[in-house]
Amino acid sequence: MNETNLPPVRIILVEPAGELNVGAIARVMKNFAVQELILVQPRCDWLGEPARRMAVHAPEILTQARVVPDLMTALSGCTRAVTTLGRTPPGEPLKQVLPWLLAATQPVALVFGPEDRGLTWAELQLTQRRVTLPTSPEYASLNLAQAVGICLYEIYQYHQPAQAAPETMVVSPVPLEVLEAYVLDLEDLLLNVGYLHPHTRERRMAKIRNLLQRAAPSAQELALLRGMIRQIRWAISPET
Amino acid sequence: MNETNLPPVRIILVEPAGELNVGAIARVMKNFAVQELILVQPRCDWLGEPARRMAVHAPEILTQARVVPDLMTALSGCTRAVTTLGRTPPGEPLKQVLPWLLAATQPVALVFGPEDRGLTWAELQLTQRRVTLPTSPEYASLNLAQAVGICLYEIYQYHQPAQAAPETMVVSPVPLEVLEAYVLDLEDLLLNVGYLHPHTRERRMAKIRNLLQRAAPSAQELALLRGMIRQIRWAISPET
Repeated sequence: MNETNLPPVRIILVEPAGELNVGAIARVMKNFAVQELILVQPRCDWLGEPARRMAVHAPEILTQARVVPDLMTALSGCTRAVTTLGRTPPGEPLKQVLPWLLAATQPVALVFGPEDRGLTWAELQLTQRRVTLPTSPEYASLNLAQAVGICLYEIYQYHQPAQAAPETMVVSPVPLEVLEAYVLDLEDLLLNVGYLHPHTRERRMAKIRNLLQRAAPSAQELALLRGMIRQIRWAISPET
Repeated sequence: MNETNLPPVRIILVEPAGELNVGAIARVMKNFAVQELILVQPRCDWLGEPARRMAVHAPEILTQARVVPDLMTALSGCTRAVTTLGRTPPGEPLKQVLPWLLAATQPVALVFGPEDRGLTWAELQLTQRRVTLPTSPEYASLNLAQAVGICLYEIYQYHQPAQAAPETMVVSPVPLEVLEAYVLDLEDLLLNVGYLHPHTRERRMAKIRNLLQRAAPSAQELALLRGMIRQIRWAISPET
């Protein structure tokens, strides 16, 4: 994560058995700007074609992955480490752990157990905190690569400014008096074509006004709406 | 998501080509308590062994997936829909869009394009808002199943405590396909009166569609809008 001053993040997979999972993890690591992958006694071919196919444009994360004999060796050099757990017993929410984890200045580690079993009690003791991602009780077990992806997504977002990105939905609406002038113009047309009658006029126009206010058209959009009225008038009586 | 009063969430995959992806998506949908999967012209075998292997304990999501010929059909019955985009042009952050999306009472849709290309311009027009997940500029493109997983993780977390209250809805809007039928009807009128020309038609209608989507008319309001078109048509050519 070189675009920030977050600590380097290390992904540690304990005895991963799925080569597709390891390849997918390499890809999502690069998606979230994390480079260091450590494999503890891997039970699959993380350099073979299936893993590389899943890694797509991140083959270097696979080829540079380090293989170590135990979790303690994998954690070497890290000052803070977190393990992900299933629901029982539940760990802390990830959001609660991140401020602590990412306040480190040395490398920090995220540890993921094998696909088919949890980490041993002894392995769990090696990391300071345990995290559980919220999932449905109906089917709580996330795919390993999904779990890594979600954790890295949260970490990547952690340092982002409070997301004041442009809201594409919000246009700068015209002032109410400009909108009202259009409403009166439309009313005139609708009287002309016989859509409004004396007894329905007020209520119908109130509904149309309400809809337009809710849409809050921009100046450009209002110009479009005005153009329509003009052209419809002309279609009705071209001679005027 | 029956543990909350969030609206039902529909996952729409447009022309998915990877059977492993579709299988992984079924699994992560069940992890986050989402059931409805719709495939628009799938280009892979979503019921075959590889997809089922990735789905693990969620085979029913694959077997119950609906296959439809186009995105409009897939969106039928939804009032709010979001597309995920790559980085250029960037969409809004997901967190910014969720309060709006999840304030709906009818089904809402998350639309994901094919693995190898973005959605077409016409397809993008059918959803109200566009989302981009934050990723590294070095390798921005998330695996499809990862993108779905991250979106559903955010949605699943949305209702957890310490979230701002959803925006209150003023009216219950018509489904998107009903709005689209009106847009096509309006387009027909505007061609008749000479407001649209071949070179302006598509862009102008996109702006009008955008305005109408933002207004999100209710059934009663749409009936008013339809009545206007009918009456204007009659005023133009009373004999037809």
